[in-house]
Amino acid sequence: MLSTMQDVPLTVTRLLKHGSTVHGTSRITTWTGEDEPHRRTFAEIGERSAQLAHALRDELGVADDQRVATLMWNNAEHVEAYFAVPAMGAVLHTLNLRLPAEQLVWIVRHAADRVIIVNGSLLPLLAPLLPQLTPVEHIVVSGPGDRSLLDGADVQVHEYEELLAGKPTAYDWPELDERQAAAMCYTSGTTGEPKGVVYSHRSIYLHSMQVNMTQSMGLTDEDTGLIVVPQFHVNAWGLPHAVFMTGVNLLMPDRFLQPAPLAEMIERERPTYAAAVPTIWQGLLAELTANPRDIESLDQVTIGGAACPPSLMEAYDKLGVRVCHAWGMTETSPLGTVARPPAGVSEADAMGYRLTQGRFPAGVEARLTGPGGEHLPWDGTSAGELEVRGPWIAGAYYGGADGEPFRPADKFSEDGWLKTGDVGIISPDGFLTLTDRAKDVIKSGGEWISSVELENALMAHPEVAEAAVVAVPDEKWGERPLATVVLKEGATADFEVLRDFLAEHIARWQLPERWTIIPTVPKTSVGKFDKKVIRKQYADGELDIKKF
Amino acid sequence: MLSTMQDVPLTVTRLLKHGSTVHGTSRITTWTGEDEPHRRTFAEIGERSAQLAHALRDELGVADDQRVATLMWNNAEHVEAYFAVPAMGAVLHTLNLRLPAEQLVWIVRHAADRVIIVNGSLLPLLAPLLPQLTPVEHIVVSGPGDRSLLDGADVQVHEYEELLAGKPTAYDWPELDERQAAAMCYTSGTTGEPKGVVYSHRSIYLHSMQVNMTQSMGLTDEDTGLIVVPQFHVNAWGLPHAVFMTGVNLLMPDRFLQPAPLAEMIERERPTYAAAVPTIWQGLLAELTANPRDIESLDQVTIGGAACPPSLMEAYDKLGVRVCHAWGMTETSPLGTVARPPAGVSEADAMGYRLTQGRFPAGVEARLTGPGGEHLPWDGTSAGELEVRGPWIAGAYYGGADGEPFRPADKFSEDGWLKTGDVGIISPDGFLTLTDRAKDVIKSGGEWISSVELENALMAHPEVAEAAVVAVPDEKWGERPLATVVLKEGATADFEVLRDFLAEHIARWQLPERWTIIPTVPKTSVGKFDKKVIRKQYADGELDIKKF
Repeated sequence: MLSTMQDVPLTVTRLLKHGSTVHGTSRITTWTGEDEPHRRTFAEIGERSAQLAHALRDELGVADDQRVATLMWNNAEHVEAYFAVPAMGAVLHTLNLRLPAEQLVWIVRHAADRVIIVNGSLLPLLAPLLPQLTPVEHIVVSGPGDRSLLDGADVQVHEYEELLAGKPTAYDWPELDERQAAAMCYTSGTTGEPKGVVYSHRSIYLHSMQVNMTQSMGLTDEDTGLIVVPQFHVNAWGLPHAVFMTGVNLLMPDRFLQPAPLAEMIERERPTYAAAVPTIWQGLLAELTANPRDIESLDQVTIGGAACPPSLMEAYDKLGVRVCHAWGMTETSPLGTVARPPAGVSEADAMGYRLTQGRFPAGVEARLTGPGGEHLPWDGTSAGELEVRGPWIAGAYYGGADGEPFRPADKFSEDGWLKTGDVGIISPDGFLTLTDRAKDVIKSGGEWISSVELENALMAHPEVAEAAVVAVPDEKWGERPLATVVLKEGATADFEVLRDFLAEHIARWQLPERWTIIPTVPKTSVGKFDKKVIRKQYADGELDIKKF
Repeated sequence: MLSTMQDVPLTVTRLLKHGSTVHGTSRITTWTGEDEPHRRTFAEIGERSAQLAHALRDELGVADDQRVATLMWNNAEHVEAYFAVPAMGAVLHTLNLRLPAEQLVWIVRHAADRVIIVNGSLLPLLAPLLPQLTPVEHIVVSGPGDRSLLDGADVQVHEYEELLAGKPTAYDWPELDERQAAAMCYTSGTTGEPKGVVYSHRSIYLHSMQVNMTQSMGLTDEDTGLIVVPQFHVNAWGLPHAVFMTGVNLLMPDRFLQPAPLAEMIERERPTYAAAVPTIWQGLLAELTANPRDIESLDQVTIGGAACPPSLMEAYDKLGVRVCHAWGMTETSPLGTVARPPAGVSEADAMGYRLTQGRFPAGVEARLTGPGGEHLPWDGTSAGELEVRGPWIAGAYYGGADGEPFRPADKFSEDGWLKTGDVGIISPDGFLTLTDRAKDVIKSGGEWISSVELENALMAHPEVAEAAVVAVPDEKWGERPLATVVLKEGATADFEVLRDFLAEHIARWQLPERWTIIPTVPKTSVGKFDKKVIRKQYADGELDIKKF
């Protein structure tokens, strides 16, 4: 029996048209470091996206599904690229400006980027790499920065504003297949080559709906969202696309990501919402402690990208900012879970729920797979690798042999589910608690020790600034935990004090025997603890280990 | 370029699995008229839906896309059918129990319903029709009612609870194509044959997401929704499916739709939300005035199905109940617009927005088409017929020649948009104001007069209970408005008083010359003003007309 419904594709184009008309007066405010930030309405974004599409097609010859890359901060122009490039049928490739140079080069070549739109302030990063970026024919520069860095480069150089000037403010957007590629990100995996995830119009549209559902971010056009999470990091968690559905205003920090300007822009622009990784929140907290600011406009913040230490959540609670934990990854668009406590729980129980990764939305199916490949019950105790399935979850990576997608067996199950590489438990009511990365679990004498649990327990100590725990080889047990600790300034605690503190919360057999003080925990380009580096430092004998 | 996203279908099955696990403790409460209402968790609904699917397949032989009809009130069993039938791959057909008998017969035969699940209390309606319901092989009876009415009927009769008893509480739901038929409704059009709209799994899934977005109903699992709008009326506005995404609790009135029991269930069960057509809210208001009840739990109500008189909205405002206007139709699933004022408007301006039909969500594209087929601007003044397009909007009707869908030219544009038959204006920020049904507009001397505007102005008079305005033939002007008025008990106003009252709000040339008092406005089966009946009464000389 045939449905009689219209067959209307779910496309980024539809988001652009809707947001720039129905929510035409909503605004994107971009921080400039000057007295006045820059403001642009969604209606203007719509017109400028049309101008950008005209420029890309008519002057730069972008056609079909060619890749247009961005090397940009969070700003209004970057949002214009978010809409213009997919809506014209091409593929937006957001480049992670924190990647090591050799990875950036590898990614640009692998994606075959024909155009790079770059913020002028990032030319010192881009210019030296240009000779190696063989597929790139056009560089479009936006915003302040020294253009002379591009002198002599074997590419055509354009000014963003000059390209747009005088172009028509409407574009006859093509009707696209919703399964067509719209945007791509490479995972900044700590091991192996970066892997490309290619989002479809359909996946972006559905993910945008999910972001706007009551139990996700839950924002309306009365809100202003400070988007600290970079647009090159899983599309800033999908927020720039999503807000065009509901008219949520955006506050974009551009390159001003240090704690002091962030605190200033919160005080001055009064966002109601903010999104960032934990390290940003750590830094902001320290800044606010040193230089108090009025941040009372902030009602809710989403912390994602890494587990949020409970101490950090509690600190923001005290400031009247409700921290909401979320989990996701490049491969999940990224919204995988959001930690809103279920209805009817007490304040005390609510904290327990808030400290989990959160609850799966209807669009994300989840299962736990044990070491033997068996699927484990949602009983709150059985720990297994999390596997997920859904319309905004990757089922392959870009660019295997002959341009076909490829599906490494350690990343995807035989029946097509994404193997997240995260180990955790799920409660009967669908709340996920991640205990570790599968590769960071410490396999000690046939039992698993969670490195994250040890870290959180350590970071709850008032004199500990940060702590990372990694598995190190042990003759007797196979592996044992090594605790690496960053102490706060003026701290007096020694290892024995910390070990006794840990023992109050952690089973005795799980307590680390190996300890070291480090000046700072090494981080990946997106701010996660880079445990690979610590393991290597240990293996190379570079750490001063105290064992007891 | 291929997207690397998983190709996961959007299905009702997915809603069922999600709601019955992640939101397993949310509840459906069904009013029974006894001391205690009946309560069932979403987890139990999940198990019983599996049992129902087993029964339908194994005992009644339901296969493929056969139709399983329901003739039921709003209750937990009806929700079980909402999930079991589509999830097993069959098609749910909700029968409108208020339709005239001959239309019900026509619809059952047209849809080829093989099974009817019926509430026992509705057997007096169904039993006499059975000899004419030739496709029907099985009747499944649920809830109290006299079974002997079915004695001698040429169908197999089953007890709902007996069918389910002992069946497995899990079902190996098939993986379905998201474009497959899931459910169908017939429009209760006031002219011509009823027209079947066939919803797909995709359209129901996407509509459910929209219902749960912040700018639609905006509910969470902390809410309880009293669903007065019948499940046979556009799937109760999609709410029973939608709540399985977010765990919103439901309060179902079953057959107790009179103002007194509704007031009682609000006081006792404390819903935070309710959904119904204006006539229900009129009745409830009169009941609350006569017999005050504590309804302070009610925070928000959606009024749809017909335009809400401003006086009604203001009356509920005074009771602390925020009325939110919504517009839709069977062909739009039905969510077409929701009237939430945009951010930043004053209280006074907010009322202006709340009295519109509302703003289009991202999934609904809209345009206005003028008398000459031209598309009109969204300028807040150009009036045209509203046409809509989107993934949960019908593009055809069920059952043309050879079972193909058919698309009458007066219902669908050549490029596939639904012609709603509603005339209205759209503001630059996307708020729709409907002024009339295209067929109810009064064409007077080359100008259009809105019958709805006249009605609202009339109903604002304190002595007017209801008023309907229809076009009647006029030698000089072509058509002129006829005002039919229902006065409140003890009213003393005469036509001249009412006419002077109207003249304060309406241009003089639009004032009706023809007036009549009627005891009540005739209504359609879903509670809308039935102007066809009034026009016929006028043509037949049955109305006592005062002309001046």
